[in-house]
Amino acid sequence: MADPITISLDAMGGDRAPDVIIAGAALALQRCPDLRFAIYGRAAAVEPLLRHYAALRDASVLHDCEVVVQMDDKPSQALRKGRWKSSMWRAIQAVRDGEAKAAVSAGNTGALMAMSKFCLKMIAGIERPAIAAIWPTLRGESVVLDVGATIGSDTQMLVDFAVMGAAMARVVFDLERPTVGLLNVGVEEIKGVEEVREAARILRESLQTHFEYHGFVEGDDLGRGTVDVVVTEGFAGNIALKTAEGTARQISEYLRAAMSRTLMARLGYLLARSAFDRLREKMDPRKVNGGVFLGLNGMVIKSHGGTDAEGFASAVELARDMARHDLVLQIARHRIEVAGPEPIRAGALSA
Amino acid sequence: MADPITISLDAMGGDRAPDVIIAGAALALQRCPDLRFAIYGRAAAVEPLLRHYAALRDASVLHDCEVVVQMDDKPSQALRKGRWKSSMWRAIQAVRDGEAKAAVSAGNTGALMAMSKFCLKMIAGIERPAIAAIWPTLRGESVVLDVGATIGSDTQMLVDFAVMGAAMARVVFDLERPTVGLLNVGVEEIKGVEEVREAARILRESLQTHFEYHGFVEGDDLGRGTVDVVVTEGFAGNIALKTAEGTARQISEYLRAAMSRTLMARLGYLLARSAFDRLREKMDPRKVNGGVFLGLNGMVIKSHGGTDAEGFASAVELARDMARHDLVLQIARHRIEVAGPEPIRAGALSA
Repeated sequence: MADPITISLDAMGGDRAPDVIIAGAALALQRCPDLRFAIYGRAAAVEPLLRHYAALRDASVLHDCEVVVQMDDKPSQALRKGRWKSSMWRAIQAVRDGEAKAAVSAGNTGALMAMSKFCLKMIAGIERPAIAAIWPTLRGESVVLDVGATIGSDTQMLVDFAVMGAAMARVVFDLERPTVGLLNVGVEEIKGVEEVREAARILRESLQTHFEYHGFVEGDDLGRGTVDVVVTEGFAGNIALKTAEGTARQISEYLRAAMSRTLMARLGYLLARSAFDRLREKMDPRKVNGGVFLGLNGMVIKSHGGTDAEGFASAVELARDMARHDLVLQIARHRIEVAGPEPIRAGALSA
Repeated sequence: MADPITISLDAMGGDRAPDVIIAGAALALQRCPDLRFAIYGRAAAVEPLLRHYAALRDASVLHDCEVVVQMDDKPSQALRKGRWKSSMWRAIQAVRDGEAKAAVSAGNTGALMAMSKFCLKMIAGIERPAIAAIWPTLRGESVVLDVGATIGSDTQMLVDFAVMGAAMARVVFDLERPTVGLLNVGVEEIKGVEEVREAARILRESLQTHFEYHGFVEGDDLGRGTVDVVVTEGFAGNIALKTAEGTARQISEYLRAAMSRTLMARLGYLLARSAFDRLREKMDPRKVNGGVFLGLNGMVIKSHGGTDAEGFASAVELARDMARHDLVLQIARHRIEVAGPEPIRAGALSA
């Protein structure tokens, strides 16, 4: 068996914490026996749950933390009351102190990002963090970033996102040279906002040994899987992600209504049951649960707040994958190979 | 029968022009006998087609235009070579000159917008145009704007879009007081970019007799139909629209693959055939074909370039609806009632 790998968990984050967190960790451990956990949360709430999961209890160390960051705390509030002592902070700190390889939380995204930046700091040369999502496509899966960490990105941030997203795609999809596209409103060179066109110019003109710059892609290229990595600014990325989730839910609802409308349809549904199950599995948002925080000196994964044990287990397994491949180190190396130790300034590479 | 209503057609715009344009117009005329057409295009190409549609020929006047705007012409190119004389320009000009109530083109969007602005000019007090899409939702349909006319909108433009979108929703959905939401990355007041938050403040504080300001909405509210009108800047709006289209295609593809995989699934599919047809109809992008240009002194409707006759007929019928209700006049009136004849400046309404 491979060396054990320790993941730190914020047991108190999420709509159904700590129950879902503990059940999800137990599920992940069943599938990946090399996992170990550093669990941060209220001992009085977590300990009774651990009694139901003997294997998890044996693979974990529980650290009692009284303070809990609420789902509706503003980032500044969360930092004020939760720094040094909340379950969220301490899970992140375990990564900083080398006690865990990655932290997973289903808590408040804004607070988690604020604490992660404060505790772990940015990788040298990278200015702002991104949240990367794994997006199911007709060709398989793509990495899409940023889906909401950095609202209003400039040229350099987009170039950094390309470097980080490519490093993640290499690790997660095991690709030698992933393709990278910039999300835009058209594929022609003249289209879109200035920052995106300038980022395109830099990516086109620089020598990328670790990825291949494809050009602009549009919203419908996301589901098509035209490129392995789609780079965009956080506002548009967040709206794209939620629009896709909403559209999938909408179509499921149409399908459900259509299939229960007539007797023939219901009968057909029963016969095609296994096909529908397969479709449901394809569309299952729990399977791609986990936003990866990129650009920090340490791995932090954000699980959906409303997920169940299966979804949380996916986030834990994603964290394990990233940690096994030492994604942070990969990003830092890529970053230096692409542009030296200094930030990539617009025009610097073409000079 | 109601008074006839004349629509001008750019017969040469679109991937399969003029065939689809003529067949689509004939279909629309079948369903709406009050339609009349002013058709602009190459007579040598259009006349032979009209021979197959006697009713359409009788309801149309064909104007010969040699110059055709190409699908890949840049807006500036199109204006240079196509102004005054192309089929696209002359269809728009017919609206300006009062010969038609609305123009429909399946041609190049950028060129159509540039020519429409140049020829029709903006409504007094409205700074930039928007393209509005009709979005199918779980509750019915919503108006979403801007889906790509104005990249990078400021506060005032967003407020103008709210006024225009609400006027369109009143007309298209026959609502007394449609609800309006601003697309954002979260529903909390502190989230998002400055322009969106400032627009929210103005909309909240102003007295809207013609619509109800709901607050922020997120990407997944689009499919849910949380509000009747969703207002956003053109970059994010375009990406949301294409992401939704791409997701719908992706799920159709999954469904098709799942249903043809086993014998049982194929049998189930046959039994539930009518339910699948219903679903397909629900998801049919042709039924909501037509981007409505708002903010101009005249109605112009952009059809998808790749649509078929059914889709083009939808765009023509949408144009007819807008024209019947005199949407341009409605917008100009709303605009003045909300803010007087001057542009709405940030802070002006709360002062």
